[in-house]
Amino acid sequence: MNYLEINTKDDIEKLKSYLKQNNYEEQENTVRQIIKDIKEKKDEALFEYCQKFDNFNANHNNIKVSDYEFEQAINNITQKQKDIILYAKEKIENFHRAFLPKTCIIEQNGIILGTRITSVKKAGLYIPGGKAFYPSTALMTIIPAYVAGVEEINICTPAQDGYINELLLYIAKLYDIKNVFKVGGAQAIAALAYGTQSIPKVDVIAGPGNIYVALAKKLVYGEVGIDSIAGPSEVMIVADNCEKLYAAYDLLSQAEHDINAKVYYLSFNDECIKKISEKFFELSKLTNRSNITSKSALNALFIKSTRDLAGCIIDEIAPEHLELQVKDPYIFMNSFKNAGAIFIGDYSCETLGDYVAGPNHTLPTSQTAKFSSVLSAETFLKKSSIVHYSYESMKKDAPFAIEFAEYEGLFAHAQALKVRL
Amino acid sequence: MNYLEINTKDDIEKLKSYLKQNNYEEQENTVRQIIKDIKEKKDEALFEYCQKFDNFNANHNNIKVSDYEFEQAINNITQKQKDIILYAKEKIENFHRAFLPKTCIIEQNGIILGTRITSVKKAGLYIPGGKAFYPSTALMTIIPAYVAGVEEINICTPAQDGYINELLLYIAKLYDIKNVFKVGGAQAIAALAYGTQSIPKVDVIAGPGNIYVALAKKLVYGEVGIDSIAGPSEVMIVADNCEKLYAAYDLLSQAEHDINAKVYYLSFNDECIKKISEKFFELSKLTNRSNITSKSALNALFIKSTRDLAGCIIDEIAPEHLELQVKDPYIFMNSFKNAGAIFIGDYSCETLGDYVAGPNHTLPTSQTAKFSSVLSAETFLKKSSIVHYSYESMKKDAPFAIEFAEYEGLFAHAQALKVRL
Repeated sequence: MNYLEINTKDDIEKLKSYLKQNNYEEQENTVRQIIKDIKEKKDEALFEYCQKFDNFNANHNNIKVSDYEFEQAINNITQKQKDIILYAKEKIENFHRAFLPKTCIIEQNGIILGTRITSVKKAGLYIPGGKAFYPSTALMTIIPAYVAGVEEINICTPAQDGYINELLLYIAKLYDIKNVFKVGGAQAIAALAYGTQSIPKVDVIAGPGNIYVALAKKLVYGEVGIDSIAGPSEVMIVADNCEKLYAAYDLLSQAEHDINAKVYYLSFNDECIKKISEKFFELSKLTNRSNITSKSALNALFIKSTRDLAGCIIDEIAPEHLELQVKDPYIFMNSFKNAGAIFIGDYSCETLGDYVAGPNHTLPTSQTAKFSSVLSAETFLKKSSIVHYSYESMKKDAPFAIEFAEYEGLFAHAQALKVRL
Repeated sequence: MNYLEINTKDDIEKLKSYLKQNNYEEQENTVRQIIKDIKEKKDEALFEYCQKFDNFNANHNNIKVSDYEFEQAINNITQKQKDIILYAKEKIENFHRAFLPKTCIIEQNGIILGTRITSVKKAGLYIPGGKAFYPSTALMTIIPAYVAGVEEINICTPAQDGYINELLLYIAKLYDIKNVFKVGGAQAIAALAYGTQSIPKVDVIAGPGNIYVALAKKLVYGEVGIDSIAGPSEVMIVADNCEKLYAAYDLLSQAEHDINAKVYYLSFNDECIKKISEKFFELSKLTNRSNITSKSALNALFIKSTRDLAGCIIDEIAPEHLELQVKDPYIFMNSFKNAGAIFIGDYSCETLGDYVAGPNHTLPTSQTAKFSSVLSAETFLKKSSIVHYSYESMKKDAPFAIEFAEYEGLFAHAQALKVRL
């Protein structure tokens, strides 16, 4: 079992070396080549990659999901499936709408100043497919773009043997999305970034994916906007009590995602570490996905520290999900800044956040919560400044701006004001 | 003179080919090597690059500006210089503070949900130096980080022969910034992204720079956050009248920045195009910087179109600065979405925005206003979700989340709720 005791601030160095990142240089070279191919040969290269990676013989006629495929898919959805999707949909939409930023204009001394908020025109959403398709991910990726008011939403998802999950098509239809393309991997990201004959070039690409998708998003950033670069999922639990053993189940629910999932348990007392780790390892052998959990459990890190040092430890790990099972959690929150989502108290387990609480479940991973944010409508919005001077207000500010410009040697800048005075 | 007539939506294709981007593959390879060197050899490589690019024999003792250097610099600033800087400082701070987003928590049916906003801990600001040092850029880069509440601000700026502009040191001192490093170029960005013995690793890097700085920021994105990737400065003016010839002066003030500066003038009538272009070319030969303006003037593009099509044209160019010298500008604004900053009316020339209006003058360029935003405190902030269920509210949502999890085959997710019920 991976175990660290952190008794002083200096001990955090031990944690840092534990958190050392992987190097993906080789995969990055592969992805760079894929992007180059798509940029140069467009559909021709794209279709080749669809065949190679998804065993799908793509062409101009079948790469986009047809009306008939939509219809067939929707007929096969059960009422029960619809009910849970619609319940989650409403709650997620409500939250995203409540936190939607709006254009704001103020007036100061006769000058109108503001921040104008507009949506991007075209979004490209990547939704993992095949065996790893999760309808919750479709909701969590589509809803922020929809709430932001994006004019055209395009979805790319890998189609193993040409097949697309029916629930994805049902959800796309709920949002009147017609452009669903059977393309996955780095080639999908490249196509959305540069455009091909079949796939439109978009303004922003968002959505989770494997390491190739993540690297492709990193490489096309700048050509388009992206949400963030996602790595394996993580949870960190900070607990000062453990009577109910909930933490062991929560660690397990993270561990079942993937053999690279990362789980961290920090407690202030030895007893909790002992009880929770024992229960966790016991459970990890008994799940439906024990082939995964028995491996990912080996990555778990148990940390013994103090309430005073916990904030620094959280900030270093910057966990994607953070559960606080501690006394006075809102006071405790002042001790740290870096976390993707914070789940407070015994009843706020991550499962609720994954499906129905409302906030997005696409969150910064691999320590990027140090500077990145949860996916939200803002991913699909951008801000422009507004500046509107009257003659009088211009007259007041102009002398300062003229002097400043002249100091910088920009005399044409100064002149543009002088002709107005 | 570059001239386009756009009479139909299809004509916009002509504009697209005009806007084709440069390819920076060669420079990108150079920058990739610099980053690799700094990552591996840290200070050793950094000092070599300082010598090579800035003729500065850097070492551990002189790479950081000393107290003595601060003191000397501040003694040399005149009262007049202080006055214009303090005037601009107050106005820029006021604006950035007025638009600072705040943590917000709501309660819905017994569930506490929110978006927590926190600053990053360490910022790295790049401020161009030497002959191209502009005190306004120092204000515009430092203030957003300061207003956001960043704990540690680090500045990198190239020191030609070891010399740092005194006004930069005066401004840094106003904000109690002690870490000013004499490092420029891609090597500065690499050092801030990965850390060396002398330069701390930061969470976010912001600030404008040349193409090498821009490419370095693109390549380190993901390891750290960045503001945006800036290219040459641009202005677009849309005008339905031209009696006062202001537009010619505004085009000129953009053109004096740099031989690659881009200026666009769109009018709905031939007379304005004729009058403004003639005046602009005439002025471009007469400026203090006519060596620059006579060249950059050749890049100017004059467009004749209609009020109905103007919005589509703006959205395609997505100009960094947009001046609207048209009737009913607020109604006209509904016709487009993409612009870095919008200057409204005859008296809102870009010069005011560059120095004293308040909004930031670091703006998205090279069509990235399609998805990027103006620099602001938000560049140094990040958002975490907050989820807090009571037992009762958990009981209500749990059945839906359990079914959803089981549908996705994530039984441990479901189990984490079942043990709580």
